[in-house]
Amino acid sequence: MEQLFIIKIGGNVIDDKKNLSVFLKNFAAIPGKKILIHGGGKIATKIGDQLGIESKYIEGRRITDEATIDLVTMVYGGLVNKKIVAKLQALQCNAIGLTGADANIIPATKRPVTKEGVDFGFVGDVESLKLKVESLEVLLKAGFSLVLAPLTHDGKGQILNTNADTIASAIAVALSKLYDVRLIYCFEKKGVLENVNDENSAIPLITKEIYQQLKKENKLFDGILPKIDNAFAAIDSGVKEVLIGHAEDLLQNVTQETTGTLIKGS
Amino acid sequence: MEQLFIIKIGGNVIDDKKNLSVFLKNFAAIPGKKILIHGGGKIATKIGDQLGIESKYIEGRRITDEATIDLVTMVYGGLVNKKIVAKLQALQCNAIGLTGADANIIPATKRPVTKEGVDFGFVGDVESLKLKVESLEVLLKAGFSLVLAPLTHDGKGQILNTNADTIASAIAVALSKLYDVRLIYCFEKKGVLENVNDENSAIPLITKEIYQQLKKENKLFDGILPKIDNAFAAIDSGVKEVLIGHAEDLLQNVTQETTGTLIKGS
Repeated sequence: MEQLFIIKIGGNVIDDKKNLSVFLKNFAAIPGKKILIHGGGKIATKIGDQLGIESKYIEGRRITDEATIDLVTMVYGGLVNKKIVAKLQALQCNAIGLTGADANIIPATKRPVTKEGVDFGFVGDVESLKLKVESLEVLLKAGFSLVLAPLTHDGKGQILNTNADTIASAIAVALSKLYDVRLIYCFEKKGVLENVNDENSAIPLITKEIYQQLKKENKLFDGILPKIDNAFAAIDSGVKEVLIGHAEDLLQNVTQETTGTLIKGS
Repeated sequence: MEQLFIIKIGGNVIDDKKNLSVFLKNFAAIPGKKILIHGGGKIATKIGDQLGIESKYIEGRRITDEATIDLVTMVYGGLVNKKIVAKLQALQCNAIGLTGADANIIPATKRPVTKEGVDFGFVGDVESLKLKVESLEVLLKAGFSLVLAPLTHDGKGQILNTNADTIASAIAVALSKLYDVRLIYCFEKKGVLENVNDENSAIPLITKEIYQQLKKENKLFDGILPKIDNAFAAIDSGVKEVLIGHAEDLLQNVTQETTGTLIKGS
């Protein structure tokens, strides 16, 4: 099967002009098929503040009220997404910027109010089985590099806010039937660190066996465990491999040996 | 050749929830291939005011400074565009929302400073000959209905602000080689009126002969002349026919006999 790169970037890349510029250069240089999923970065909070839209949180999770969904639709779907697209075009990368509503790529359902009565608002949980693989496929086949904003829709006319990591993983799983998918999560560290205090202690390879061993030895810090669990969940659903690490390192020679932590089933 | 509808809507449709809803229902019901080009509406000015972005004009034309291009990228490319897409999806119309940067559809050049020293800022003049007809064609063939925001790009990473009427006409001309294009301009009147004071005096058909006659008789008000001239320019470049009128009337039975003013070469 043909290889497909699915790369997620967050605030530490988006918010830093130089980081973003280096990243996009490396992204544009990846040969073949690729999808970029971006988060929103701090710019949404900044513009929200200027517009007097209060950021509301419950248990550390952002509440997406009506003003906030309009805000993120503007900022993620417009400002961040289209600036990335224009910059990729300048690098001869034929990018096309989309939300989950476009071409009905990512149908979602509005998260129900919890038993405790917490209403997260216009937050969408991806309907993984309804992902429009044919639409993604027709766009990839046409030679476009897809740039996805972290927005989905409910099929009834409402845009929804959805976690970019979740979108990356759902898309990766859905496309793993057609491609050898390498799913890459760029974050602020150089990978899964053996020693939290040593940035250069990234573990190069984690298989399920190695993961069990590392957990037994209590070597991993708690914050990284969900990321690894999510990676294995994606792998169990068909994704070939997951790479976690710092954007700058990861995409240099992304097709060959890479730094960062490679997570594979075995 | 297959028929293609290219429809431009402006503020009077976008800014009115009910008008927009009726329009989108009619648009979704058009069978076959179609492209919607939307302007920005008043919402950009409103959000700009809230963000403290001053609207600057020279000789009645808006200046697009850096803050303004970010504003319209957010509002036109994000908020307005994606809301329309989500609503069309709810109407079973497989819409995909794009700017001119996406898939490199509409390359443009930043308008040069005038001899008088007027700098319009980040305003793009469409490079008609470089329009990416293949990209539009692959998307139309895949069954997507395209929703275009009035934004272009300079190929060097910069988004540019471009008049929606101009985009509609440029796209119509470029696609007239592949389709029988009916270009539809929705505006606040029911068509080209024979009597400016009578909303129901729309002239049903204007050919070049009829146009000469109407001008000779001084029957048309000055404001409409550029619209008619632009329509004939598009027709001379290959567009089959141009329809001008009120959104609500125009799209009812759009494929059959329509109200409004139909402009044809002969």
